[in-house]
Amino acid sequence: MKPSTPKGTRDFLPAVVRKRNYIFTTIRSVFEKFGYEAIETPAMENLETLTGKYGDEGDRLIFKILNRDQKLEKALSGIYDSPKFASGLGVVDRKAFESDLADGALRYDLTVPFARFVVQHQNELAFPFRRYQIQPVWRADRPQKGRYREFYQCDADVVGTDSLRCEVEYVQIFDEVFDKFGVPVEIRINNRKILSALATYIGAPDKLTALTVAIDKLDKQPLEDVMASLENQGFTGDSVQLLKGVLLESRSTEGRAFLDVLKQKFADIDEGQKGIEELGYIFEKVDQLGLKKAELVFDLSLARGLNYYTGAIFEVLPDTEAQVGSICGGGRYDDLTGIFGMPGMSGVGISFGADRIYDLLEAISGFPTDQTAGTELMFVNFGEREADFCHKLLGTLRSEGVRAELYPDSAKMKKQMKYANDKQIPFVAIVGANEIENNTITLKNMTTGEQDNLPVGDLVGKLRHV
Amino acid sequence: MKPSTPKGTRDFLPAVVRKRNYIFTTIRSVFEKFGYEAIETPAMENLETLTGKYGDEGDRLIFKILNRDQKLEKALSGIYDSPKFASGLGVVDRKAFESDLADGALRYDLTVPFARFVVQHQNELAFPFRRYQIQPVWRADRPQKGRYREFYQCDADVVGTDSLRCEVEYVQIFDEVFDKFGVPVEIRINNRKILSALATYIGAPDKLTALTVAIDKLDKQPLEDVMASLENQGFTGDSVQLLKGVLLESRSTEGRAFLDVLKQKFADIDEGQKGIEELGYIFEKVDQLGLKKAELVFDLSLARGLNYYTGAIFEVLPDTEAQVGSICGGGRYDDLTGIFGMPGMSGVGISFGADRIYDLLEAISGFPTDQTAGTELMFVNFGEREADFCHKLLGTLRSEGVRAELYPDSAKMKKQMKYANDKQIPFVAIVGANEIENNTITLKNMTTGEQDNLPVGDLVGKLRHV
Repeated sequence: MKPSTPKGTRDFLPAVVRKRNYIFTTIRSVFEKFGYEAIETPAMENLETLTGKYGDEGDRLIFKILNRDQKLEKALSGIYDSPKFASGLGVVDRKAFESDLADGALRYDLTVPFARFVVQHQNELAFPFRRYQIQPVWRADRPQKGRYREFYQCDADVVGTDSLRCEVEYVQIFDEVFDKFGVPVEIRINNRKILSALATYIGAPDKLTALTVAIDKLDKQPLEDVMASLENQGFTGDSVQLLKGVLLESRSTEGRAFLDVLKQKFADIDEGQKGIEELGYIFEKVDQLGLKKAELVFDLSLARGLNYYTGAIFEVLPDTEAQVGSICGGGRYDDLTGIFGMPGMSGVGISFGADRIYDLLEAISGFPTDQTAGTELMFVNFGEREADFCHKLLGTLRSEGVRAELYPDSAKMKKQMKYANDKQIPFVAIVGANEIENNTITLKNMTTGEQDNLPVGDLVGKLRHV
Repeated sequence: MKPSTPKGTRDFLPAVVRKRNYIFTTIRSVFEKFGYEAIETPAMENLETLTGKYGDEGDRLIFKILNRDQKLEKALSGIYDSPKFASGLGVVDRKAFESDLADGALRYDLTVPFARFVVQHQNELAFPFRRYQIQPVWRADRPQKGRYREFYQCDADVVGTDSLRCEVEYVQIFDEVFDKFGVPVEIRINNRKILSALATYIGAPDKLTALTVAIDKLDKQPLEDVMASLENQGFTGDSVQLLKGVLLESRSTEGRAFLDVLKQKFADIDEGQKGIEELGYIFEKVDQLGLKKAELVFDLSLARGLNYYTGAIFEVLPDTEAQVGSICGGGRYDDLTGIFGMPGMSGVGISFGADRIYDLLEAISGFPTDQTAGTELMFVNFGEREADFCHKLLGTLRSEGVRAELYPDSAKMKKQMKYANDKQIPFVAIVGANEIENNTITLKNMTTGEQDNLPVGDLVGKLRHV
């Protein structure tokens, strides 16, 4: 029996945990500077909280928790006692039986639990409520490179306000986070109202969903193929020709300029005017405030599949050689909590894809090289007397905040040095009879191989200023 | 439909997340100073990794993940097609059927996943391997006050060494963590070898488990009741009398002195001598190094139920008015990974009970009052022109690390102030036409009610030095 983790899940070793924490800590610090506060929800939700929120495909990918004891008993006895069974007819109400097997499930994203949270705690929250949440989610997707069954989402949302300044601040948040990561990014923005106007413009106002799904595919499929598939879905030839024209024009026109073109085209479509006005406001404020490094770009072909978006939609792509696809997304919604009986709660939210950002930072060597965690100094253990001396010293060092350890056994020197090497400990202290007598230590820099004998009192200074 | 979380699980609102993070951050920083590194394992483990590791009762409390698609199909068809069913005999192999329903489970503790991790990654780790792990675990226990179905464990373990200096360092870790928390604690220590010798001493060498279970109950039940229950379990009257004598003597003797008493009593029992020697070593080193605040006490009646302990065992109790019971535990084991095919990996580990520490810190008002998270300054929003001015200022403040926000809408002043109050934001900036003209802001201290008009350039200094 060779132990392993379940398919699509991962262990994280110390070096990887450190890098992941660098990502989370960076994002968290920016969220907090913008007034967002952390909440946490349980990994388990009631199954009924989740089902029906992610479409049929999503429902299928929810991990369910098997009921226990009496509940499981009840589910099973429902079968056992079925006269249909006894007579060999099989279970008729298969669906009901399966739903009896599980009442609970693992959360599938952070948005639905957040909606549930807002409704449940509405009297304890200050609205507009800004929250961030960095927690794992679970999806029974087929695992593949970069796609896991257990992965972290890093979400921020503000609910209870229509103010477009929230969108402006999300652009600033994207900008600041990726500035800290040293990653140049393009922040793409569109507006669901503009897509809706586009559907009207091409004479297919009732086919918005099919249109957005198709547009979403444009970065993976040739324009011709996407257009052909629309015709198959009942779009008229005229609609498709109009759409194709607009899309081609958008590709050959600079983003902001194309917003002006659309203003003319959608002259008679109120919703389109509204969407263009919203984006105009966001661009204007972002211009006033300035960005550190990111570029904000209008992109008509940005659609995002989620149906609950009603205003601005975002996507962030790295402007680097490394091809990792979209690393953030988000958008505005009119009604987050209606499904839980609290209508009219509008808001806007964004999400950072931690795994993709990890791969990206690996690819561009973007992780910081200075050590902010992990042992800084190891004492070699030569035996009880020396170990006693070092153990005492450890107390002083640790009280100064130095992360330090004593090799626990007086093993062979070679073994101890290999350990220090494997653990990438930058300094090793060697303390033998001579050093004890003179109250000094011999300090070895594991990177350069240099050795220094110095008074015990100089140790912290030396470690901190090298 | 009133939304809620599943039984025994909790949402954490921002103020609680902050306090919990204070606990985790404090423990983490101490672990790291002692050379421990973080690892993470997935919430889901293969069911076979977990079953059989926690006893029958534990097995019953493991949350299982319902299989999906073909696997579930297969499990169910096993029933549907059963000739036993068709003939009305019911399912015979009920157990096999249930095990077909689930291959995966939620982790029940951090120890078994850690053992699995060590075996799986043995070639990637530097031994002796020190790891810490702060992650949630799930148990289908009946929820009650202070007991949840989803809760965090904070574990540290070192494996691959017999060195008793590890035990010494755990005493130091307990001491340092609770010194930081400002909680006086008693660290109780015993040794499984001493308990084993006790079983031999009273003439019941084959009844160690029953003896430890009984001793474990002594802090909840009267001595007489516990003794009576031992007689019912087949201990002879002589055994029980001897045991009672030793326990009474231990109660009336100071801990360390009683260790000397036992040294005499167990003169002929090698294992007892070994256990006493081990504890003697730990006490000697701890004496040499000194503790900040905690007291280390030998306690013969400390047993800890877990059978895998073979050496020192620990328990930490707060020395406060608040009654929360044991807040940490731990011990040494000879063989952590044998169950996964890697024998002889000995080690020692400890665990902090985060929920109990939380309750304790609440009870003694032990959480820090200085704000290390949460918005520090809110700008009131009087309309577009003022908001533009404030939004620009926000950039400066945030670049100085100030957590600041602008109320997103130009709502009524009263509403905005209530929001700031509810969110416990300590400062509010009021910027109207006058302030814009003079490039000043009016700063209101929400605690004192004081208002100050100051030049924009003085704002950061004012916030940082008040």
